[in-house]
Amino acid sequence: MDSITPTMPGQAEALALRYGPDAVPPAGPWSDAIALLLGHRSVRAYRPDAPPAGTLETLVAAAQSAATSSNLQTWSVVAVSDPAVRAQLATIAGGQKHIEQCPLFLVWLADLSRLGRIADAEGRTLEGLPYLETFLVASIDAALAAQNAVVAAESLGLSTVYIGALRNDVEAVARLLRLPPGAAGVFGLCVGYAEPAATGEVKPRLPQSAVLHRETYGIGDERAQRAAYDGLMGAFSRRNEMQADTWTERVLARIASIRSLRGRDRLKPALRALGFPLR
Amino acid sequence: MDSITPTMPGQAEALALRYGPDAVPPAGPWSDAIALLLGHRSVRAYRPDAPPAGTLETLVAAAQSAATSSNLQTWSVVAVSDPAVRAQLATIAGGQKHIEQCPLFLVWLADLSRLGRIADAEGRTLEGLPYLETFLVASIDAALAAQNAVVAAESLGLSTVYIGALRNDVEAVARLLRLPPGAAGVFGLCVGYAEPAATGEVKPRLPQSAVLHRETYGIGDERAQRAAYDGLMGAFSRRNEMQADTWTERVLARIASIRSLRGRDRLKPALRALGFPLR
Repeated sequence: MDSITPTMPGQAEALALRYGPDAVPPAGPWSDAIALLLGHRSVRAYRPDAPPAGTLETLVAAAQSAATSSNLQTWSVVAVSDPAVRAQLATIAGGQKHIEQCPLFLVWLADLSRLGRIADAEGRTLEGLPYLETFLVASIDAALAAQNAVVAAESLGLSTVYIGALRNDVEAVARLLRLPPGAAGVFGLCVGYAEPAATGEVKPRLPQSAVLHRETYGIGDERAQRAAYDGLMGAFSRRNEMQADTWTERVLARIASIRSLRGRDRLKPALRALGFPLR
Repeated sequence: MDSITPTMPGQAEALALRYGPDAVPPAGPWSDAIALLLGHRSVRAYRPDAPPAGTLETLVAAAQSAATSSNLQTWSVVAVSDPAVRAQLATIAGGQKHIEQCPLFLVWLADLSRLGRIADAEGRTLEGLPYLETFLVASIDAALAAQNAVVAAESLGLSTVYIGALRNDVEAVARLLRLPPGAAGVFGLCVGYAEPAATGEVKPRLPQSAVLHRETYGIGDERAQRAAYDGLMGAFSRRNEMQADTWTERVLARIASIRSLRGRDRLKPALRALGFPLR
């Protein structure tokens, strides 16, 4: 992480950037890796420069080193360079230009097809394959793997952004990438060097008291926490020239209507069409 | 990461341990963080020593620094110390003693209840909340967050293991942790210092050619890859005194039958009972 150490803020500053000055949690133990994680920012504009040879393989090695349920390894990843396919993926994702722009674009798959092929080759039946549980294992394991790839990328001075909007049309993604039945793209990931103007500030999160519960789930003073966070996010938005809505307004708008799901209300029938019965 | 640097193998060795000597991928760029990720091992026996004060808050800060879809922050985490509750969680998970033993046990929640409370407080309706898509967003975001916590923990010399078996009975977990409707434990995580004898070897994974596809999905020489991996995993098992089945036999057994899902065939109705219609 030598390349980024010089610009990494110290522990107190890193926590203040992530939570705002009024909600800093108690300072615990710390490491360079933790400083790297705290400094994460999603980036949506990339320079065209390719990362060094072997970067993809290093990211995949990091991804495969994440835990995987019962060592089933029910995920795969497709690296897409073809500009025509990139353009179509960007369209599926609602016009996210960074999908076309970033030097490395990865589509992470929930992939039960490999187990299906093994069962076929061995003349066996897998009664557990058609269940929601097994799809969820594959999706969670893809997420654990991808997050390791993100950490690895950021340790190399690269930036990333997840593209959940590939789920706007998982069937179209499957056609473009020629996925076999039992495989589906659960999200994309842009990787590349950030345009300097696009790095932005660390985005504040809800205070720890909103997400961390002890022994049992407690709601606490959630309304006051949300009011404070709305204030913090409003100031963040103004500084970063985004729309000036509060967090409350944004999250409510994001899932207010079927239309705001942008096609993902059809995810269940679309996954079934791709070979996940989700029993 | 100072505390663990002295024992971390170099790049060539780390890749050889993860893939076996005959399937080492091309060496790309490298960093201390990547060495940390490559060195991951799940640990199932813990010393009783508590980690330093503030460790939980540091892990949660790392977790909240992970990307979250549209900044919705649809996950929460419950830290459970109560020995009686730990014992019940261990029973749900099929008798995994490390759940009782580890100094820190975390249950990661897909949590749409917070958005539901916001909508109620604001007198709004969230048509998008009951969909499979929204549950999947929450589960994936919980996984991204948890993986950051795992990386942070390992950077501090702590070990971890995910407990997917909490999904054997998500309703019982919800009762124990008094979860509101719209929240469900998607997996647990043990955190603590490994018993020295329990650290074990790095577990080899499938060769990169099995999971990494270029442009489109290709099956390639999957049978030969699997035969080689079965050999590698067989030797790993013999060295680590586990059962000597091949990987093929293990994965087929794990999802061979409804019974092998250990109650998770009921995940869909159980999630519905917890307030996730999964439309």
